[in-house]
Amino acid sequence: MAVRNLETCFSPALFEADEHRESIVVIIDVLRASSAIITAFANGASEIIPVAEAEVAREYKTRGYLVAAERDGFVLDFADFGNSPFNFTKEKVEGRTIVYSTTNGTGIITLASRARLTVIGSFLNITAISKWLSLQEKDVLLFCAGWKNRFNIEDTVCAGAIAQNLLGTGLYSTICDSTIAAVDLWSLAAPDLNGYIDKAAQRTRLRDKKLDDCIGFCLTPDFTDKIPVMKNGVLVDSLL
Amino acid sequence: MAVRNLETCFSPALFEADEHRESIVVIIDVLRASSAIITAFANGASEIIPVAEAEVAREYKTRGYLVAAERDGFVLDFADFGNSPFNFTKEKVEGRTIVYSTTNGTGIITLASRARLTVIGSFLNITAISKWLSLQEKDVLLFCAGWKNRFNIEDTVCAGAIAQNLLGTGLYSTICDSTIAAVDLWSLAAPDLNGYIDKAAQRTRLRDKKLDDCIGFCLTPDFTDKIPVMKNGVLVDSLL
Repeated sequence: MAVRNLETCFSPALFEADEHRESIVVIIDVLRASSAIITAFANGASEIIPVAEAEVAREYKTRGYLVAAERDGFVLDFADFGNSPFNFTKEKVEGRTIVYSTTNGTGIITLASRARLTVIGSFLNITAISKWLSLQEKDVLLFCAGWKNRFNIEDTVCAGAIAQNLLGTGLYSTICDSTIAAVDLWSLAAPDLNGYIDKAAQRTRLRDKKLDDCIGFCLTPDFTDKIPVMKNGVLVDSLL
Repeated sequence: MAVRNLETCFSPALFEADEHRESIVVIIDVLRASSAIITAFANGASEIIPVAEAEVAREYKTRGYLVAAERDGFVLDFADFGNSPFNFTKEKVEGRTIVYSTTNGTGIITLASRARLTVIGSFLNITAISKWLSLQEKDVLLFCAGWKNRFNIEDTVCAGAIAQNLLGTGLYSTICDSTIAAVDLWSLAAPDLNGYIDKAAQRTRLRDKKLDDCIGFCLTPDFTDKIPVMKNGVLVDSLL
């Protein structure tokens, strides 16, 4: 195939669904939805049903499902837990189906559902997802979740790190300014990722709510080689 | 006054009008609308009437106005000229009222019209606008025009340069990830701005249309100290 096109989108408000129908869309919500979903699969979850609306998550709960649901970092009252990756322990999730609804992440998964394929990426699976993507002969869109439609730094530098991996294979090219900027910001962040993310607004928000205990974990490269992939509206392990 | 808030918006699609009603909004469309407007005032234009719709510009032309109007870089058939800064010579614009309509820039001016004050910034007036802003006791939004609602590099690094000037005064603070990223990208671009902008998609677009002759000029710092300000729907010199 010809050289594949690589693009980056910084916010759901900038997503152009029609442009990416044939692309693989990588959803990146480092703090914390992508990291939580990837951790769940690393700990043996069998599938995750993302739902955008809290009311739909509540309905699943009444039917006996394990439900992770938060808004603005706070666990919804009916849910089993929220979206800290630390909640998705082996004891809780192994072999289970989880219904999952967050402020940002799951709405974006719904938005991207018209793409050819949707996968979940973060620092936790960064080498694995970069290699997996390079084996697919498809254009790639790195879709940063942002925060309430705003640009954010942590998703952007993660996109930049994946973009650098992909461009390094020689299989991709880009004329997308967002991708170029993301790679450049990654070059600044890479020598001290934790220090760099210290500047990010979401880190401040999580710290103010005392929800920042998982940030160091979320920035850990290669915790797992699991790649959650959307199939028929449900996230499953890419190997299935 | 308390420390002023500094924010940056990367695209019209991300603009939150309600958040910035009390702010000064700086419109940045380096290639080429902001640069052309600033050049026009440097060369003695008396006022510029920005219009979003081409048909409105055409109507002004029939009433005898000097009209600059382009779409995607090409001059509209009824217009006197397009939006290269090189068109706005002293001979053509001194003492004149210009009606101005471009693909991106003028639509954004309309969008920002609910803000407290709208001004036009680019590299051409960068020191002057930074100083002028610091004398106003207001929050500031740096509003990058982007390209067809997409993020672009040249507007972002210009926003970063202005942001660095403002933050350096100690009068502003920011918790806006876009501002932090813009300052960081400016730090990468500053040592060789022309070289850095070589990576930008808009440079490629303009080169493909042979409209790139003005890029070096558009990246010239401090060509003028003119600051175009919107008053009653018309751009005038800030000193008026």
